[in-house]
Amino acid sequence: MAPKHTSTHLQTWLPILRWGRHYQRDWLAADLTAAAVVSLMLIPQSLAYALLAGLPPENGLYASMAPLVLYALTGSSNTLAVGPAAVTSLMTATAIGAVAGPGHPILQLQAAVWLALISGGMMLLMGALRMGFVAHFLSHPVISGFVSASGVLIALSQFKHLVGVSAQGDTLVSLLPQLWAQGHAIHGPTLAMGLGVLVFLVLARHKARAWLRDRGLPGFWADLGAKAAPVLALVGSVALSACLGLSERGVKVVGQVPTGLPTWTWPDWGTSTPQLISALWVPALLIGLVGFVESVSVGQSLAAKRRERIDPDAELRALGLSNLGAGLTGGFPVTGGFSRSVVNFDAGARTPAAGMFTALGLAAAALFLTPALYHLPQATLAATIMVAVLALVDVQAFGRTWRYSRTDFAALLLTFCVTLVWGVEAGLVSGVSASVLLLLHRSSRPHIATVGQVPGTEHYRNVKRHTVVVHPQVLGLRVDESLYFANARYLEDHIAQAVAGHPELKHVVLQCTAVNDIDASALESLETINQRLQETGVALHLSEVKGPVMDRLQRSDFLQHLSGNVFLTHHQAVQAVAGEGTAAPTRPHPD
Amino acid sequence: MAPKHTSTHLQTWLPILRWGRHYQRDWLAADLTAAAVVSLMLIPQSLAYALLAGLPPENGLYASMAPLVLYALTGSSNTLAVGPAAVTSLMTATAIGAVAGPGHPILQLQAAVWLALISGGMMLLMGALRMGFVAHFLSHPVISGFVSASGVLIALSQFKHLVGVSAQGDTLVSLLPQLWAQGHAIHGPTLAMGLGVLVFLVLARHKARAWLRDRGLPGFWADLGAKAAPVLALVGSVALSACLGLSERGVKVVGQVPTGLPTWTWPDWGTSTPQLISALWVPALLIGLVGFVESVSVGQSLAAKRRERIDPDAELRALGLSNLGAGLTGGFPVTGGFSRSVVNFDAGARTPAAGMFTALGLAAAALFLTPALYHLPQATLAATIMVAVLALVDVQAFGRTWRYSRTDFAALLLTFCVTLVWGVEAGLVSGVSASVLLLLHRSSRPHIATVGQVPGTEHYRNVKRHTVVVHPQVLGLRVDESLYFANARYLEDHIAQAVAGHPELKHVVLQCTAVNDIDASALESLETINQRLQETGVALHLSEVKGPVMDRLQRSDFLQHLSGNVFLTHHQAVQAVAGEGTAAPTRPHPD
Repeated sequence: MAPKHTSTHLQTWLPILRWGRHYQRDWLAADLTAAAVVSLMLIPQSLAYALLAGLPPENGLYASMAPLVLYALTGSSNTLAVGPAAVTSLMTATAIGAVAGPGHPILQLQAAVWLALISGGMMLLMGALRMGFVAHFLSHPVISGFVSASGVLIALSQFKHLVGVSAQGDTLVSLLPQLWAQGHAIHGPTLAMGLGVLVFLVLARHKARAWLRDRGLPGFWADLGAKAAPVLALVGSVALSACLGLSERGVKVVGQVPTGLPTWTWPDWGTSTPQLISALWVPALLIGLVGFVESVSVGQSLAAKRRERIDPDAELRALGLSNLGAGLTGGFPVTGGFSRSVVNFDAGARTPAAGMFTALGLAAAALFLTPALYHLPQATLAATIMVAVLALVDVQAFGRTWRYSRTDFAALLLTFCVTLVWGVEAGLVSGVSASVLLLLHRSSRPHIATVGQVPGTEHYRNVKRHTVVVHPQVLGLRVDESLYFANARYLEDHIAQAVAGHPELKHVVLQCTAVNDIDASALESLETINQRLQETGVALHLSEVKGPVMDRLQRSDFLQHLSGNVFLTHHQAVQAVAGEGTAAPTRPHPD
Repeated sequence: MAPKHTSTHLQTWLPILRWGRHYQRDWLAADLTAAAVVSLMLIPQSLAYALLAGLPPENGLYASMAPLVLYALTGSSNTLAVGPAAVTSLMTATAIGAVAGPGHPILQLQAAVWLALISGGMMLLMGALRMGFVAHFLSHPVISGFVSASGVLIALSQFKHLVGVSAQGDTLVSLLPQLWAQGHAIHGPTLAMGLGVLVFLVLARHKARAWLRDRGLPGFWADLGAKAAPVLALVGSVALSACLGLSERGVKVVGQVPTGLPTWTWPDWGTSTPQLISALWVPALLIGLVGFVESVSVGQSLAAKRRERIDPDAELRALGLSNLGAGLTGGFPVTGGFSRSVVNFDAGARTPAAGMFTALGLAAAALFLTPALYHLPQATLAATIMVAVLALVDVQAFGRTWRYSRTDFAALLLTFCVTLVWGVEAGLVSGVSASVLLLLHRSSRPHIATVGQVPGTEHYRNVKRHTVVVHPQVLGLRVDESLYFANARYLEDHIAQAVAGHPELKHVVLQCTAVNDIDASALESLETINQRLQETGVALHLSEVKGPVMDRLQRSDFLQHLSGNVFLTHHQAVQAVAGEGTAAPTRPHPD
């Protein structure tokens, strides 16, 4: 037994042991094809996201090698492609900017490495502690508002590269005045190059597939052709820039990119390192959470298409290791990106081996292609980023959420505005706080219906919605929510209010059909209610208590103190206690 | 109409307009008696709590005048008695200690005044915004752990006065080594006085009532006699101290207490005031919340005994005004105390006028009794406090909560330990964070039952608990929780897992009996689930959706995208979709 258990345990941590031993020859062809396509796509993307994070372009390439290999060894998704992504790169830029100014490139690199290491370490720890649920703090409206605002911020941050002016900062408040003030400094050739690439990419995204199909290409190749547009833009603009000598005409180009593979390096540990770490741990945690949520959403939706599934805790561990790998090879925080994973899936990747082959493709690029990148205009990369993040801004989510729920809309709008005005960290923190506050507020006033008997039946319904029979001595209340600390006092108050001024009342029956849980706070409130009612000569009864709730109540002494009884059905309760007095039919009285 | 509305509005803010105009002569006698009893009790208490807060004794008297009058004008409880209380005084001591060392009495007084003013202002604001629900953040286990730990800390903090050594700080970690180191410095006469009063008070608390009754006193007077024990102790020890000249023998006495009424004073505003305020607002908020929770619990339980009720938002406003009053008359933070309110109630107070008469009683004490307090040994006050806080430490709550719920016990223990070791603020904040985290954790994994048909009926039950019939092509799931951001992803994951590896499955039916709400996050998850199932040829259906939930779903386009249908009952759903295939009965298989 022991070896088998060990092997299963190892397989949980290293899924490659499971799929690796059954690897089939025809999977190899599929994985290699997918890797080739994803590599081509990743070269411009990783350069662009390094630019977005405020780092040298080669760091983008480095961040796309070790993490891919580590994820392939440990991840639970067959098709997720790991590397730098738009939103986490923006968050990286913000976090770096807070500890290292633009004149300190070495400190910036150190900060990027520490961000990846801390974020990776925390994800690994959370994965080991099975704390993936923490990501649930990020509700959909908060993520939606945050990602939309990030998309706007990213587009704005690239605007300066596109038009050739220089500006600092990543919030609306800090960017707009600078762009306004430097409007006259727009650089013509840069703008022409940027706008050209932008128009080409937008056209390619929306028209290329249909155009290629009309030219007789089969669906798969037409798709591939459309996806290759960023690579074409890259090759075309490098060629154009080199032939026309654009860098001499003042167009900013990527410049010298060191050739070679990343080396395994421990980060420097100096006297200021503890201070650096203490300044970076909150952004690192937020980057880890946002990256995890993005990655798991992508991974789950791809896995579901093949009726496979992924394990969120395994994903946390794999992403943690990937980020540690990124940090130790000179990269910056990475996550499972949406577009590249979809491309990997569509190109037919069968196993995580495709990720390893992609890493080889990027290694080849780092070894052989870097001299060619010298003439690449930054405006081309900016255009690539802007087109990619346009898809992030979900304008429809505002209207949809407004129509569906006002409180969710409030959380969405707050997150969007705070992110835009005060930046990514403030936006995320205020969004999460608002969701939790709104959740407590919403469940702090549960729906409590006064119920009466539908004449001639054993059914009990809301007196406000139905014509029902009620007894003057019996008050039947149905609580439509689990009872816990946030709403326990409301129940106390509601019952106090319902009883006040009704001296004829002798029995209160709580119908517990929708009560899935009673926590210790609610138990104390029930005890308080029971005692207060008893002091005024009213008995408290419960009806239709669920099995698990009843099991728990029996572990306390509440049932011994209960002045009334527990009934299987509400009808039995009312029949048992409403012996005296006459029942009066009521009419619905909505208010 | 307008004048009537105005008057109602005014009455909401000034309940005295309601009860004052119907004031009856026999109420006056009752209110005066209660006021006399409570005044006698409050004199030693307010001196003791000033000592606990680290302030001069007269400030305790000042904090028991203006607040009582303001509460009587604006409060919604007829019997609540407002003034300094044990836990809030400890919190005041901690907050003052953090900004003013023991050598700065003027700064300490300023900090106390600002604490009362900020805390009062915040309560007033929260009351006006109807934000009383924020107090629901404090779950019963958190309050219980916090109050028990505070009781221990208070007792420890008084220990030094009882035995006559001097020590600083209010956490276990800071107190114990000092008491240990100064063990040899115990002052004999002080200890004798302190222990004597302690034993007398403990005996009085547990035996006096029965003893007085055995001597033939009627119940009411026996009760009153027992309650008067602290006053007796006070008078006795002043007499003893003066006769024996204890202060010359090294027993610390209260000393010179200024005679006279508090004056209305605006706090000084200096250059350091903004800094002081920014250091005090968090403790002030916590003091306000704790005071509000204590006050509302006491007020509600007393009101319920007479089938009256109190209004939590009115209480917030009244307590806010009381604290502002305390701050502007040289006092410190106040709240509705438990023991004095019960005494007020038991002594027969009918209206808030009793509170005004109590304030007059204390004014008389401040005018005429202060010279007599010169010889009062601090050890007597320390013993008074220690006996009072013994009742706060609820040892049984630990066992009771452990048996009822492990997660609630975790919150209780965490709050207790953190309060004891790191102090009141850290304890409260970590307790609240833990409750919210545990709440999200608990509801992030809702109970989801696979259901099947009870043979021969239209009922569907958990396949793990009952012998039921299931169709291989139909999966019936009952979610026992509202769907919202904290559990939406779990549902996605649960369904992905249930579907994976079942190629024969064609329909998933969600039975929504216990789903009271679906927020925007859960709606998106349902859309994701629907889409993923559709891509693998499985239709998603809903059954037994509640009215309000259905209303909301109809405001989104989810129902248009839904691959299946919405059915009134689960049985209708299963009958409609399980046309083909043969139903197989299952046996219960609990796991």
